[in-house]
Amino acid sequence: MRNFTHNHAVLALNTATLGHNVDGQGAGWSPERVIDACAAHGLGGIVFWRREIGSRAIEIGDRVRASRMQVGGLCRTPFIVGRDAGSADEVKASIDMAAALGAPVLTIVTGGTKPSSKGVVETQKILAERLAHLALYAADRAVGLALEPLNPMFGGNRTCLFTVAEALKICDQIGAPNLGVAVDVYHVWWDTTLPDALRQAKGHVIGYHVCDWLENTKDMLLDRGMMGDGVADLRALRGAVEGTGYLGLCEVEIFSAQNWWKRDPAEVLDVVVDRFRTYC
Amino acid sequence: MRNFTHNHAVLALNTATLGHNVDGQGAGWSPERVIDACAAHGLGGIVFWRREIGSRAIEIGDRVRASRMQVGGLCRTPFIVGRDAGSADEVKASIDMAAALGAPVLTIVTGGTKPSSKGVVETQKILAERLAHLALYAADRAVGLALEPLNPMFGGNRTCLFTVAEALKICDQIGAPNLGVAVDVYHVWWDTTLPDALRQAKGHVIGYHVCDWLENTKDMLLDRGMMGDGVADLRALRGAVEGTGYLGLCEVEIFSAQNWWKRDPAEVLDVVVDRFRTYC
Repeated sequence: MRNFTHNHAVLALNTATLGHNVDGQGAGWSPERVIDACAAHGLGGIVFWRREIGSRAIEIGDRVRASRMQVGGLCRTPFIVGRDAGSADEVKASIDMAAALGAPVLTIVTGGTKPSSKGVVETQKILAERLAHLALYAADRAVGLALEPLNPMFGGNRTCLFTVAEALKICDQIGAPNLGVAVDVYHVWWDTTLPDALRQAKGHVIGYHVCDWLENTKDMLLDRGMMGDGVADLRALRGAVEGTGYLGLCEVEIFSAQNWWKRDPAEVLDVVVDRFRTYC
Repeated sequence: MRNFTHNHAVLALNTATLGHNVDGQGAGWSPERVIDACAAHGLGGIVFWRREIGSRAIEIGDRVRASRMQVGGLCRTPFIVGRDAGSADEVKASIDMAAALGAPVLTIVTGGTKPSSKGVVETQKILAERLAHLALYAADRAVGLALEPLNPMFGGNRTCLFTVAEALKICDQIGAPNLGVAVDVYHVWWDTTLPDALRQAKGHVIGYHVCDWLENTKDMLLDRGMMGDGVADLRALRGAVEGTGYLGLCEVEIFSAQNWWKRDPAEVLDVVVDRFRTYC
């Protein structure tokens, strides 16, 4: 396992940590201001959300690289399945944006259960069919697609994948080299079968998202904890992820409307760096 | 599989469906009024919460049986582990209450992660040790203990068991004939490994709780759906449960502060009976 005690060169900021995935939340800093602050804090990368990029993908990507950081990835495609699924063109446009940004990975939150169906099995089949096509389109643009299983509380309207094992199964079915899995602490910390699932996932993890699960989580979506403040076994989780051969960025992604989004982003970054070195 | 289209003799009301598990919620009917209404609706059983029983366990149990219904069970022990765990005496008192009520099953929600520990593995070990003792105490009183795994959103402060497979594993470790598992639709509907887990659970399911998972669940705790209003595959779930040999009551348990708890209990019971016959 890598030792981060005195080194946070692989630490990346997901800008959701500053509230930038939700209109009207956080400090509302421009991408340029975020880039400068991350560079000043010695981070290794940044992961943006589409709403921040607009038509400036190339410009923003270049700016990150000029600051000696990586664009870690882009969040995220429109939903692929479910009532709120985007069109194929909309999904492809998000892949184009990732390519223009120079993001190696585009995250996928699948979307929920197919309207008027029950359970998730039928929806997972539709998902696999659509992903097979999208993976080809993304491969032509050198973009990896990272399937992110979500905590089961997001079943119904947001996801049809609840565990890393399920996401890996779909990857195996499709067999596309640029389709992998994003492991997010918030969604998987509880899963005691995760180490076993990851032992069979050599090379399939292409994203690792870090935060903490608060003992008394008050809001499903917007009450994630800072590393060290919760009950997730962060070292064990990273060990299992690195066991697959993953040596990429560790992306801090904290949705926190009532706490971290209310603070000055520079302070948040200070704490992120400190907690990353201490707890991750 | 049993056919309920014209028969709801195994339908039981969990009184949480009328808000009776939370102070100040629901219509606040007395146990006697609930018993009469359930009997009038042709139900086969009732499951109470401890707060309704007080010191009247024998009296209330007898009243249920005099109305030609079963006491399906009692909700629930104090937490066994975690920050808010009850004392051994408090847990034993809940077993005594179940015995006095004539409830064959007492439900267990385990409680959350041991304070200052991380993850759930350490807590699960403590849980197993305590359950081994409690199962003996309960066996002497002819009470079954039903471990109820909760949706992973309840990790941290409420549970250290997230899947039926995990609960079954603890049952296997302890090997007590009166320790089993309660399968609750709300908590397990998303789990695509459930059918496999249940195939190895012959005789180990001792409770089946029914509701629905709403596509847009608005509150973690108090926004459960009426059967048919959500995305759970209720027939498939019951099929998997009955495959273990379970032929007991189907207990409707709907926490719903903004919808069903605001309605007249008689109306709620009408709908429960109709939906049970149509969707379960």
